[in-house]
Amino acid sequence: MKWNIPSRDDAYRTAAMARQAILTKPTGALGALEDVAIWLADIQQSEKPVAGPAAAIVFAADHPVSHLGVSAYPREVTPMMVMNLAAGGAAASVLARLNGIPLHVVDVGTESYPDPKTGPGMHWLRAEQLGAVGDLVETDAMDPSAFKAAWEAGVAAVDALNSQTKIVIFGEMGIGNTTPASALSARLMNKSAAELVGPGTGVEGDVLKAKRALVQRALDRTAGTTEPLEVLRKLGGREIAAMVGGMGRAAERGMAILVDGFIVSSAALLATRHESKIRDYMWFGHRSAEPGHALILKSMEARPLVDAGLRLGEGSGALTALPLIQASVALHNEMATFEEAAVPGKVD
Amino acid sequence: MKWNIPSRDDAYRTAAMARQAILTKPTGALGALEDVAIWLADIQQSEKPVAGPAAAIVFAADHPVSHLGVSAYPREVTPMMVMNLAAGGAAASVLARLNGIPLHVVDVGTESYPDPKTGPGMHWLRAEQLGAVGDLVETDAMDPSAFKAAWEAGVAAVDALNSQTKIVIFGEMGIGNTTPASALSARLMNKSAAELVGPGTGVEGDVLKAKRALVQRALDRTAGTTEPLEVLRKLGGREIAAMVGGMGRAAERGMAILVDGFIVSSAALLATRHESKIRDYMWFGHRSAEPGHALILKSMEARPLVDAGLRLGEGSGALTALPLIQASVALHNEMATFEEAAVPGKVD
Repeated sequence: MKWNIPSRDDAYRTAAMARQAILTKPTGALGALEDVAIWLADIQQSEKPVAGPAAAIVFAADHPVSHLGVSAYPREVTPMMVMNLAAGGAAASVLARLNGIPLHVVDVGTESYPDPKTGPGMHWLRAEQLGAVGDLVETDAMDPSAFKAAWEAGVAAVDALNSQTKIVIFGEMGIGNTTPASALSARLMNKSAAELVGPGTGVEGDVLKAKRALVQRALDRTAGTTEPLEVLRKLGGREIAAMVGGMGRAAERGMAILVDGFIVSSAALLATRHESKIRDYMWFGHRSAEPGHALILKSMEARPLVDAGLRLGEGSGALTALPLIQASVALHNEMATFEEAAVPGKVD
Repeated sequence: MKWNIPSRDDAYRTAAMARQAILTKPTGALGALEDVAIWLADIQQSEKPVAGPAAAIVFAADHPVSHLGVSAYPREVTPMMVMNLAAGGAAASVLARLNGIPLHVVDVGTESYPDPKTGPGMHWLRAEQLGAVGDLVETDAMDPSAFKAAWEAGVAAVDALNSQTKIVIFGEMGIGNTTPASALSARLMNKSAAELVGPGTGVEGDVLKAKRALVQRALDRTAGTTEPLEVLRKLGGREIAAMVGGMGRAAERGMAILVDGFIVSSAALLATRHESKIRDYMWFGHRSAEPGHALILKSMEARPLVDAGLRLGEGSGALTALPLIQASVALHNEMATFEEAAVPGKVD
């Protein structure tokens, strides 16, 4: 599970920065949109980067912890949402279609489909489920075999993408999964459950208190665990493990990673603790309304592009940010320089 | 200059809200993207609104105050940038092209074009320049005749749009124009120059101090002026007056207004003080890095969608936000309902 992330020639980053300085705008006036183009120039090793092809992968899994009452929705929602995602009716499906990019749905561990069906437009994959899973409060979220299977499903999903893919968006679906995301992020950042746990799909009052207490118990149980992959195995869900595995493979293949909200950011945090080099491959799409997200963003020194109060998951926040990545690249490649447009420069 | 803004049937807004509640997502999980769809449903009087056609208009003008040293760039930049915008090389040109929408450039008062030219792809209009303009510090920014001409150029520009236009983006170009925008915003909000004036294109140190002092003198000179259009005439630039006139006409015609950064927001603030009904027609695209913008946003209870540190103007921030408006509408119209997808609802 060690990653072989390529080293890069710094010349492309430098050249992209130099180009930004001569485009017809005050220096820095495009803010993060300048930085995004320079980031892609570095990853793609090209002074004029491209913003596609892009692709999205949504990983889905059940969570035994959802039996303990941490979500506003029943766990049966997860398999039905897998089918909704695959059939084109979920938020991420709509946004992927709007952006003209493929949305791949990979089930890495749901118990059952009440009405298994395939049909026109249905496009999803059920990964092999091995090993045992637990509720993370009393038992580990995954045994080593379940962890390995989920991780490898993530790697395989990235390997199955069009080999020309330049930007990959990870999304997730799993009723109850703000609980493992809160637990593993708190563990990695040495925070308490109270600091990380938020409403998720919309719990409040006593249910929110109970969710916090469960996460704190999980943190107490794993107090001695610091190795990132062990934190992930003990506290994370299978879709989070799949995303971490997939992120590593994406970076190995030189793909940029556009990070979604709270759950995906917890995977990004985990991946970065496992191998700090992967941080260079990530941009954060949006600022989620889930309160724990702000702490992860701060810890990773990330400044997301979109601030629309989304808290849905599925990769939806990253998908709304994709056009800003495209805008950044178009501006970088297509704007006139001061010289080309004969515009006078800054007064000294 | 009174506006006749149509009253609307609240049924469409209510219907759109009801639809948002049955789409396959936790209630409110799409944040502002839910609100944007409901906003357009209300303006367009349709339960399923559309996100286009959209169009952008950039108004450009010189500012006599730029002779007093308030900008990092010489005033000759303005006409050259008009041509750059028209020729497709400016940031707003690139973004309009990326979004597939027309960008109209209207010069409402630049002194001279060093090298007047037209050619393939050049598309700009020079409005008639009447009356006298001043530096706003010692003399009014516009005499009544100049003010009326600029206002009417804004109205005419909106009237010249494709009559099917549903969303209009206003942008501006005018070296020195953060100075009038700061002055009129401070006047309307009863703030000091120190609270509103920021770096603009990038002034700092003594130049920034001098800019603040000039704006404070302009505020002191107009201390008794409260009527919004008189504030605009005395402190605003011609492109700001054109935008206010254009915004009113857009609302009269039932078009949604996607507001850009600091300068355009100062026009939006002015328009709202002139006629509060126009506020319903506005959404704010982005949060500018110009510090005064935060004060205007707060005063207008606006929460922009994009937070990328842009501070360029030209409508560029609103243009980066346009895909989020499109995302909002696509989600609203195309997502499956809980019933359609047979997804279980919230646990009671």
